[in-house]
Amino acid sequence: MSNSYGKLFRITTFGESHGKGVGVVIDGCPAGLEISREEIQLALNRRKPGQSNLTTPRQEADQVEILSGIFEGKTLGTPIALVVYNQDAESKDYSHIQNAFRPSHADYTYTAKYGHRDHRGGGRSSARETLARVAAGAIAAKLLERQHVKIATYVSQVGKIQVRKPYQQLDFSKIESNAVRCPDGKTASRMIRLIEETRDKHDSIGGVVSCVIQGVPAGWGEPVFDKLHAELGKAMLSINAVKGFDYGSGFDSLGMTGSQHNDIFFQDSSGNIQTKTNYSGGIQGGISNGQDIYFRVAFKPVATILQTQNSIDAQGNEIQLEGKGRHDPCVLPRAVPIVEAMAALVLADFMLRAQVSKL
Amino acid sequence: MSNSYGKLFRITTFGESHGKGVGVVIDGCPAGLEISREEIQLALNRRKPGQSNLTTPRQEADQVEILSGIFEGKTLGTPIALVVYNQDAESKDYSHIQNAFRPSHADYTYTAKYGHRDHRGGGRSSARETLARVAAGAIAAKLLERQHVKIATYVSQVGKIQVRKPYQQLDFSKIESNAVRCPDGKTASRMIRLIEETRDKHDSIGGVVSCVIQGVPAGWGEPVFDKLHAELGKAMLSINAVKGFDYGSGFDSLGMTGSQHNDIFFQDSSGNIQTKTNYSGGIQGGISNGQDIYFRVAFKPVATILQTQNSIDAQGNEIQLEGKGRHDPCVLPRAVPIVEAMAALVLADFMLRAQVSKL
Amino acid sequence: MSNSYGKLFRITTFGESHGKGVGVVIDGCPAGLEISREEIQLALNRRKPGQSNLTTPRQEADQVEILSGIFEGKTLGTPIALVVYNQDAESKDYSHIQNAFRPSHADYTYTAKYGHRDHRGGGRSSARETLARVAAGAIAAKLLERQHVKIATYVSQVGKIQVRKPYQQLDFSKIESNAVRCPDGKTASRMIRLIEETRDKHDSIGGVVSCVIQGVPAGWGEPVFDKLHAELGKAMLSINAVKGFDYGSGFDSLGMTGSQHNDIFFQDSSGNIQTKTNYSGGIQGGISNGQDIYFRVAFKPVATILQTQNSIDAQGNEIQLEGKGRHDPCVLPRAVPIVEAMAALVLADFMLRAQVSKL
Amino acid sequence: MSNSYGKLFRITTFGESHGKGVGVVIDGCPAGLEISREEIQLALNRRKPGQSNLTTPRQEADQVEILSGIFEGKTLGTPIALVVYNQDAESKDYSHIQNAFRPSHADYTYTAKYGHRDHRGGGRSSARETLARVAAGAIAAKLLERQHVKIATYVSQVGKIQVRKPYQQLDFSKIESNAVRCPDGKTASRMIRLIEETRDKHDSIGGVVSCVIQGVPAGWGEPVFDKLHAELGKAMLSINAVKGFDYGSGFDSLGMTGSQHNDIFFQDSSGNIQTKTNYSGGIQGGISNGQDIYFRVAFKPVATILQTQNSIDAQGNEIQLEGKGRHDPCVLPRAVPIVEAMAALVLADFMLRAQVSKL
Repeated sequence: MSNSYGKLFRITTFGESHGKGVGVVIDGCPAGLEISREEIQLALNRRKPGQSNLTTPRQEADQVEILSGIFEGKTLGTPIALVVYNQDAESKDYSHIQNAFRPSHADYTYTAKYGHRDHRGGGRSSARETLARVAAGAIAAKLLERQHVKIATYVSQVGKIQVRKPYQQLDFSKIESNAVRCPDGKTASRMIRLIEETRDKHDSIGGVVSCVIQGVPAGWGEPVFDKLHAELGKAMLSINAVKGFDYGSGFDSLGMTGSQHNDIFFQDSSGNIQTKTNYSGGIQGGISNGQDIYFRVAFKPVATILQTQNSIDAQGNEIQLEGKGRHDPCVLPRAVPIVEAMAALVLADFMLRAQVSKL
Repeated sequence: MSNSYGKLFRITTFGESHGKGVGVVIDGCPAGLEISREEIQLALNRRKPGQSNLTTPRQEADQVEILSGIFEGKTLGTPIALVVYNQDAESKDYSHIQNAFRPSHADYTYTAKYGHRDHRGGGRSSARETLARVAAGAIAAKLLERQHVKIATYVSQVGKIQVRKPYQQLDFSKIESNAVRCPDGKTASRMIRLIEETRDKHDSIGGVVSCVIQGVPAGWGEPVFDKLHAELGKAMLSINAVKGFDYGSGFDSLGMTGSQHNDIFFQDSSGNIQTKTNYSGGIQGGISNGQDIYFRVAFKPVATILQTQNSIDAQGNEIQLEGKGRHDPCVLPRAVPIVEAMAALVLADFMLRAQVSKL
Repeated sequence: MSNSYGKLFRITTFGESHGKGVGVVIDGCPAGLEISREEIQLALNRRKPGQSNLTTPRQEADQVEILSGIFEGKTLGTPIALVVYNQDAESKDYSHIQNAFRPSHADYTYTAKYGHRDHRGGGRSSARETLARVAAGAIAAKLLERQHVKIATYVSQVGKIQVRKPYQQLDFSKIESNAVRCPDGKTASRMIRLIEETRDKHDSIGGVVSCVIQGVPAGWGEPVFDKLHAELGKAMLSINAVKGFDYGSGFDSLGMTGSQHNDIFFQDSSGNIQTKTNYSGGIQGGISNGQDIYFRVAFKPVATILQTQNSIDAQGNEIQLEGKGRHDPCVLPRAVPIVEAMAALVLADFMLRAQVSKL
Repeated sequence: MSNSYGKLFRITTFGESHGKGVGVVIDGCPAGLEISREEIQLALNRRKPGQSNLTTPRQEADQVEILSGIFEGKTLGTPIALVVYNQDAESKDYSHIQNAFRPSHADYTYTAKYGHRDHRGGGRSSARETLARVAAGAIAAKLLERQHVKIATYVSQVGKIQVRKPYQQLDFSKIESNAVRCPDGKTASRMIRLIEETRDKHDSIGGVVSCVIQGVPAGWGEPVFDKLHAELGKAMLSINAVKGFDYGSGFDSLGMTGSQHNDIFFQDSSGNIQTKTNYSGGIQGGISNGQDIYFRVAFKPVATILQTQNSIDAQGNEIQLEGKGRHDPCVLPRAVPIVEAMAALVLADFMLRAQVSKL
């Protein structure tokens, strides 16, 4: 029930951090879409660790395998099952916490909910589950290409260091040019220094991933509950470590009045309807209006740090937790492809829904 | 499809602003719950306009009628249908905009999506739809009472004026003591002054509604996609004019490191598991941990203002829109019961889901 | 949850037999469909009692009211809420059974499931709930008209008296020409005589409603679980008193071999793909192939009879139940519009689903 | 969407006949259930071919692999992914039909729906997909064991040869004692002879699988649309080659009157509510009443026969199809575990749903 996302382009993920594998079943992708294993692999490679000295040294092959749903290079319209086998799990790293509740992790809440949990690497709560989302997102992105929808995702803030230019002045082709995935070179350098300092202190730091989507036509989204920005919000908030979401002017709209904030319509020379400003973030009444859609996703500093912390175990005894294993001081760069994948999944779903809205 | 919310405690709303009525069908409320029409009416009264000179002068009886599902004062377990008939619609107010696209409203996007729309009062996009949510929320709240869950909702910010105390220092019994529903008297006065100034300028202003939920036991929520905070986020973002959502430390976590941000577990004298701090906002890994759940909902300044604005009509002609009709300079006070209702609906759903999570 | 039907064309019904009203919310009907209150009323009139001296003398105005979703004669794409108020309930008829479990009724099972039930007229288990389905079916039928899909439904068997001609030899325009809704005049007379005899004995008799659907193009239906005939089966089995369902050759296929049963493909003079026989009932692998779809729905003799019966009450005491109130000796004629409505609802759902199956 | 089944105990299957593998993801199984790979494998072994000389000689290892959701022998409450890799596919058998539409198969309808299909072995329409259902059914059955629910499934008819005893006189322990899985020895012998004759003629024959479920308490099932027998009907009709379904007295009720058909309630010596007869098949108003639940599933003679048949190809040319490959003259014995698995899946879903019906 809760391990599925989407109404028409629907994915169900499975897999724990240290189980045999993680994967996803995509149900509802229309038949005839050209997609190859390499394209999906490419998306996964963007996510996998070991990309730079900023991220965790855990090495994984992360090779995706297609079990069904694609034949002769095209989707069949039947469920597409993708699997990635866990190879570099190192279960021994977690034996010391088998019975412990790590601070701000899901150990305690999973125990309260299920009674029985897989303590290794966080089990189902591990961020490795997001690998399945990225794989599915690659297929969703392929579907969106036919609509000429473009998604750009980047790190816009680490700690208190933020990109201060409006996104229209950024060069998205520079996102992959540095390890922190920030398209503004100067800010990227400062971010990298901050992350390195944080790692040296055995601590962690959070930040913001921003996303800009261009090319969505007017009419995507639903009124009332499945508003486009509400679904985007749920999708982003479901990513590990996310604490907040806003779109368009977001929390900044609090300092404006309606007369300042309203986006005035006009018709351009080609006869298309545009708005002079875009505080709406491309969405009005929960439905796209053709303007750029942009939003922010706030990530807390992750709970897994290499410092010693006090805690308790399942019996309530006080214990001391040594920071062990392999961890990220800052997950923001790795979160970028996950935010992008979730955006693609949401949009693919609405792309299909738009086909049955009117006669 | 998209006019429904919830998996086990599921509501479907219907109704346009100027149609015959708005209502909701609740499917999945367990049998045996004691609920009366008066209790539901009380919740609606909190929402209805005309409460003070700060809000719109539109007068409505807003009397709820129970069509099914309740017998001899208790729920039957069958669908509960509630209806409120629109009495004070004044269709003549909207004739001048029949063909116009009002700035930052849903007129254009609904036209793009459906081709055919009810232009009167915004049709389905009108905030009157939220009346149905409040009615359903009253029943959800009744269910939660059995679990001793308490929800407190209040306005914490209007424009740039915000409550600066942590919520633990606020007296929630004061929320209803002023027209702006802010439990801090001094801040409330400043907020009221700002709203009055805004109204005199025929403009609008936004703000933040905060919510604190106490008494939720550990174990509510689902991993992966239906995380408790993700569902809360979607629910809140689906309310008209909402631009952002964060929970716990939210966007403020960006200025902290992991070692500062982690909530350390301990066992209290009664043997219960607690945390020393609560930046987690009571949710870890998407599942409640027994601590207070708290979040913020950011509302933009509403698009309906009484100033003249430029725009275009459906044929692309330039027009001038006179501000007419009855409008709110600040919807925050009226949004409070809606935020509270959505919180109750989300929690009721998870309360039921928790009953099937383990043997 | 369980009071809804359909994925894309989704209905949620509500209402008990003796509550204020019964109704339905239709979510997902595309915008722009022309539909009037009169068209829906016409469908309801086909269902309502008092049509002949064969059916129950309960008189109802059964006037449908549109609360939302339709504006200026066309659907808005927003939820359509329809309500019919119960006028001729006569609660006093049921006071003697408040605590009793009537044989083969749902009194006992509802008590076991919910603890609390509305004993009047069977509450939610009453066939009056089907009124809501017929109203929704009228809208589904309007949608199907655009595809030139024609549904013919008729009584093909009462007790052991059955129509012995293949449906191709029947004149469907004769269905409404007699009270038992059988298009074969001679068989109809014999059926009517049997029903009258049964009524004189204060007993009840069952039968079969047959349905023939023409004009469905190839490609409607889904593989695996949501096969077209599986959804039709569920829809029909959800109607009160239904005990069995088969389609195409159905149970008759048991006496045939594969070589006799296979439908051989050929291409007709217009280049269309046809089959020489149609034991498949127009569905192969769960998906329509363009041929006529036909199926049978078996109705048991209803449990409500006017004879005295032994039973027990909720405390287990032996009691005697007098047959009182107003009842049908044979529900088959009234079931015809319900079977037709369910068929329309299933097909409308698949009509929409077919629009997102391939690029 | 359509490759999933169930609301709370929800399965999504994937895989084509000649793809890499088939499998299933089970979402919603409560945590703490003890289950082993061997138990699931046992269920699969019952299904696999090569059991006798009555069935297809296709040999498969059919070894199931658990990818997630089970840890230390117990379910985690997270999704359980099971995979079986296809080993003995023999793609070369199907090259001659790559472009052909086999009579009464899904070749044509899949092409009409998707445009692109996997022609090998029927692709997704192949009965190998049911392997995934059987694997999932094993876990559902484990859950039901805790409720002491027992499911007995057997072949009750092949062609016109049927078991003539009521099920209460059958010894279910004899089901596995012969190749046709009929607990009545004499009838089984005649069935076997008929199947052998049919195979020698290169033809196929159909029949009926009967199912008897004991131990279901009163209260399982939902009113209106998700009636227990309606869900069972949909589940059974979704199995390949199924043409009909009835429960309790089923189509036999047509020859009875209400006074004959009603099941009279009484209280037994232990104080439990029973019925004197059970034409209701243990279900009233769509909800279980504690009596045995029994139903029939009618299977057509399968379309794949080893005779030469006329047909057309995708361009409409007339062709002749040679019967090649490996096929079953009668799928009934192999269908028994599939019917049983579907029954378990339906019941497990309702077992969970019953937990949230009342306070």
